[in-house]
Amino acid sequence: MNIDILSIGDELLIGHTLNTNAHWIAHELNQIGFTIRQQTTISDEENHIVKTLDDSLSNVDVVLITGGLGPTNDDLTLPVLNNYFGGSLVEDKQVYQDIEKLVTARGFWMNENNKKQALISDQCKAIRNEYGTAPGLWFEKGGKVVVAMPGVPFEMRGMITNTVIPWLKEKYILPEIVHQLVYTQGIAESILAEKLSGWEENLPATIKLAYLPSYDGVKLRLSSIGKNRVQLQSAIDEQVAVLKTIIPTAIYSTQEEKVEEIIGKLLRENNATIATAESCTGGYISHLITSVSGSSDYYKGSVISYANEIKVRELGVTENDLNTYGAVSQQVVEQMAIGVKAKMKTDYALSTSGIAGPDGGSEEKPVGTVWVGMATPNGVVSKKFLLGKDRERNILKAASKALNMLREELLR
Amino acid sequence: MNIDILSIGDELLIGHTLNTNAHWIAHELNQIGFTIRQQTTISDEENHIVKTLDDSLSNVDVVLITGGLGPTNDDLTLPVLNNYFGGSLVEDKQVYQDIEKLVTARGFWMNENNKKQALISDQCKAIRNEYGTAPGLWFEKGGKVVVAMPGVPFEMRGMITNTVIPWLKEKYILPEIVHQLVYTQGIAESILAEKLSGWEENLPATIKLAYLPSYDGVKLRLSSIGKNRVQLQSAIDEQVAVLKTIIPTAIYSTQEEKVEEIIGKLLRENNATIATAESCTGGYISHLITSVSGSSDYYKGSVISYANEIKVRELGVTENDLNTYGAVSQQVVEQMAIGVKAKMKTDYALSTSGIAGPDGGSEEKPVGTVWVGMATPNGVVSKKFLLGKDRERNILKAASKALNMLREELLR
Repeated sequence: MNIDILSIGDELLIGHTLNTNAHWIAHELNQIGFTIRQQTTISDEENHIVKTLDDSLSNVDVVLITGGLGPTNDDLTLPVLNNYFGGSLVEDKQVYQDIEKLVTARGFWMNENNKKQALISDQCKAIRNEYGTAPGLWFEKGGKVVVAMPGVPFEMRGMITNTVIPWLKEKYILPEIVHQLVYTQGIAESILAEKLSGWEENLPATIKLAYLPSYDGVKLRLSSIGKNRVQLQSAIDEQVAVLKTIIPTAIYSTQEEKVEEIIGKLLRENNATIATAESCTGGYISHLITSVSGSSDYYKGSVISYANEIKVRELGVTENDLNTYGAVSQQVVEQMAIGVKAKMKTDYALSTSGIAGPDGGSEEKPVGTVWVGMATPNGVVSKKFLLGKDRERNILKAASKALNMLREELLR
Repeated sequence: MNIDILSIGDELLIGHTLNTNAHWIAHELNQIGFTIRQQTTISDEENHIVKTLDDSLSNVDVVLITGGLGPTNDDLTLPVLNNYFGGSLVEDKQVYQDIEKLVTARGFWMNENNKKQALISDQCKAIRNEYGTAPGLWFEKGGKVVVAMPGVPFEMRGMITNTVIPWLKEKYILPEIVHQLVYTQGIAESILAEKLSGWEENLPATIKLAYLPSYDGVKLRLSSIGKNRVQLQSAIDEQVAVLKTIIPTAIYSTQEEKVEEIIGKLLRENNATIATAESCTGGYISHLITSVSGSSDYYKGSVISYANEIKVRELGVTENDLNTYGAVSQQVVEQMAIGVKAKMKTDYALSTSGIAGPDGGSEEKPVGTVWVGMATPNGVVSKKFLLGKDRERNILKAASKALNMLREELLR
């Protein structure tokens, strides 16, 4: 079963808003066995919408549309689809009640725009919207389905999860899709490809391989589609086992998990706690750790010591070392880790001090120089990294390096 | 001048990787006067690439492609474009030297895959890649341009900024585009649309209006395209002035700036400093503040006090109030703000304490209950917010509310 995703809206098209909707929909639908053929983003323009729909319906079974369902004049999705399927606009009682309930709960009364949103095409079924006033629309014709949903991400997500996926599963018999990710670190894509070329040539035709380079390493993705999930997974597992013999040290995980999730599990298993003392990462490591639900079980807190005086006063860094070696140094980053571990009374602590850029670099310590420290029950270690020139990337990378240092330590 | 953006790669199509490239390219090209007609994401598949190119070239002047330029077997963009333009692959000396320099600087030597990347089509000009081994490709035919770039975001961005935009500006005479954003808060989209309907109907046809709802309010975007930037801007300014008379209190900014940037400017102007004491936001406010380059001028540091013991020990919250009112209370969040302001010796401090979810809610304090505190030179204030059920959104929203409280205070 093939699917196209169509995002409608100038804010996406001209790059004002990042299109997280198409990404999320693709991921969810792929998980349940749909093959995504194309994602398209266009403007609220009738001809272009119709042309894109024509193309999609001649290639796929299902078209999922987001955007253009609001109550304002720049929203065209409902009238265009209503024309496309030859319908008329009629009030949907259930939708009217849903809107009324939502609007009055917020302390407002039904205005003209709210009432207008209860009008849907008589050629579609309404998809109820738990979080907003625009209903979704489900059209069917010749065995094919066209669904329109609002562009507001959590409204759309609610509809996909609660209604669209159950209805699609009822209508189609879907194949199983297995994706296996293999995370590698410390090896460039071209060298990896060279090492794996022999293995790659002998891969069964049913398994598709992709190289996905990113700032924290190259991911390999093995994918397979078929009827029997267990058989697909075991064929892939066999290949991952071979991979592990070719690049044993480069592979660090085969699970689609964020490093902060892995660390959370490991800390919980060890009944251990963590704190951070951050300078150049400015709270980003702490944010990643606390983005995991339940992190209060093992995360106690942090000192973000951006100013040097805070490093001295709050973390016990010696002024002498600060003056002699500078804030971005092994001595300081190790004292920061020891200091915050003692202050927060934790088992582990991570610390960072570096030059995120774009200013502050010198010949000796260029932009991108980052020291990461880690205090453990057995002492303190630290490592220097030479990252790039971009501030945002340096913060992300430094946080990733720090969390990976802890992950490796916890796995020893 | 019209443009299509084509993203090639399964990792984007199936929702493993978020497509930030199309977003970034659209924004940059729109800024210099291109109209984006369509963004498309497809798989590495020859027929689909060719079909999409045919469609684009019959509709637009420029096609910008990312992805599929790596050295591995799943990368098809170069051979497909080379065939499309009827060329042959030849080694480019400059590209070879660039790759060799990059590879040896990393401590490696040229392998077969590296050498392969120096082969480009004799029908294109190479675009040099400052940050990676895959060169970009610039094809021209019949007054139209097709550009292919790697999918790695910072490699692509370097090419667009340093080469593609200068070359496009040389080739085309571009119109001026003016976008004016008007940020509103505290008013729902449907009510806003109702209030603005009369004004909207009388807008000059040359000015396009869009409503952009997001988690921190509804943005209005007024856009206009023409030859004279000054005239376009002044026609839009006139309309913004009218808007301000219709919804005077809802508008909080007309600049495309992040609130952390606005705060940074205001603090610097006032020669004032800031610290944060975060519980439920877990360092995210601190991360936002320090994501602004030069923030060390006004940001001193933070205490992330996830555990209650840290609130007491490090921020001077009284155990009595913690027990009586709970961690998520006015009393505690105000003491946190006062405590961190004194500790970090700053002029302002923000604090948060709330229930981000999904666990930890009660009938009295449901998930989404967040207290934000703010200590200023004149005392301490606090505010309670009832946000949603989603952990990630609650963290983002709470941080946004806190920074907005400070922004309003600094503007008094």
